[in-house]
Amino acid sequence: MTKVALVCEYDGTDFVGFQIQNNGRSVEGTLEEALSTLYKTNIDVQGCSRTDSGVHARGHVSSLDVPFIIPEDRLPAAINVFLPEDLAVTKAIYTKEEFNARFDSLGKRYIYRIYSSPIRKPLIDRYAYHVTYKLDLDAMNKAAMAFAGEHDFKAFCASGGSQVTTVRKLFNVHVFEKDGLFEIVVQGEAFLYNMVRIIAGTLLEVGTGRIDPDSVKDIIASGDRARAGRTLPAKGLTLEEVYYNWEEVTK
Amino acid sequence: MTKVALVCEYDGTDFVGFQIQNNGRSVEGTLEEALSTLYKTNIDVQGCSRTDSGVHARGHVSSLDVPFIIPEDRLPAAINVFLPEDLAVTKAIYTKEEFNARFDSLGKRYIYRIYSSPIRKPLIDRYAYHVTYKLDLDAMNKAAMAFAGEHDFKAFCASGGSQVTTVRKLFNVHVFEKDGLFEIVVQGEAFLYNMVRIIAGTLLEVGTGRIDPDSVKDIIASGDRARAGRTLPAKGLTLEEVYYNWEEVTK
Repeated sequence: MTKVALVCEYDGTDFVGFQIQNNGRSVEGTLEEALSTLYKTNIDVQGCSRTDSGVHARGHVSSLDVPFIIPEDRLPAAINVFLPEDLAVTKAIYTKEEFNARFDSLGKRYIYRIYSSPIRKPLIDRYAYHVTYKLDLDAMNKAAMAFAGEHDFKAFCASGGSQVTTVRKLFNVHVFEKDGLFEIVVQGEAFLYNMVRIIAGTLLEVGTGRIDPDSVKDIIASGDRARAGRTLPAKGLTLEEVYYNWEEVTK
Repeated sequence: MTKVALVCEYDGTDFVGFQIQNNGRSVEGTLEEALSTLYKTNIDVQGCSRTDSGVHARGHVSSLDVPFIIPEDRLPAAINVFLPEDLAVTKAIYTKEEFNARFDSLGKRYIYRIYSSPIRKPLIDRYAYHVTYKLDLDAMNKAAMAFAGEHDFKAFCASGGSQVTTVRKLFNVHVFEKDGLFEIVVQGEAFLYNMVRIIAGTLLEVGTGRIDPDSVKDIIASGDRARAGRTLPAKGLTLEEVYYNWEEVTK
């Protein structure tokens, strides 16, 4: 058996999320089915992380063992033959046997997209959250700086999580805007459940003036979920890239 | 009754096209149903043009008579309440009684999108046509120049059309590229059936080297459909804007 990392892009709209569920079509299940057809044996994939129902990905990574070698440059197309239109493998990399997409991740980049327009725009709406009001980009960026670093992000975590600690390290959070489309770019080592969607919800309220950008530091310190913004809808979120030390994990 | 122009944006994926058909969900039918609910009377819309099944629009325009006035700035939101997610009115403009979205159009801008990538990308794939090979942007732009002006576009028209003449005037055709996404921007006074999709198919073959950019002038002059490129799929095409002399058509 040989270990391989697969980078996947998917439109999350019609998936119940990455993980196999008994209530619908998952990315993991769809991928395993295609791989099992290609390799004519059962293949289990280890995803770098779950993504929720409706969340998109441009660079989700999974690791798996395959029984024979198909050249790296041909493997994505060979798998994609068996995948539906909303899921594709965009890259394949053979790795050391010990590689694990979940445990070897050095961090991830997510983008939460919000478009500000008096009117809903059907050609953007699938991948971004719509607000009808204007947003203050400078205030959002001022607030965004408070997230960088290692903090207890208890206030930015959906209740009911089973994690041992709510301390996480974010590298940085920046907000970019073009023609009313706001991109909240969040880079960090690891994330709590719904963390990016709650950070985006908090920055949205900073953008409208309901939360003072200077108070975000206090909201983090308070650990009080009720003081942070609401969890924004899944469709605005895209997992853009997962970071690894590729040189080290490949032979 | 008062005449109004409605600018519509729609994701054409799940529509049978603009025009009412007896085999599925049309933009026209969906729009008329919403308007009839809002105004509590039957409303007929006059579209600027049909778009085929699967073609998108960011700026399709329809004209219609309404029985009472809702302020221009509130009308789009009032109609959108009754529209599905993939269709929205983005602007409303009250016009002179004589205004007709089809006959008063001065021209249109379409964009045909092609993405060149070894691998299919699910997050672009809904609105662009995928090719796995590289394209020569300079050759495509050289060829594109041949389309500007008034020509008999018989070679760029689907057979079976019932038009009196196949002479049409194009203002210009330009190709832009960024990160492998090619945008073929076509602006013209009026268009034949499938004309933009055949122009895009021809420029695609210029991009691959199968058609010499210098021969496009001859292909137009030949009037021979078989010498032009194939009709590219609907999903890559978006009607971006319809031009009117707004000052003249409004009171």
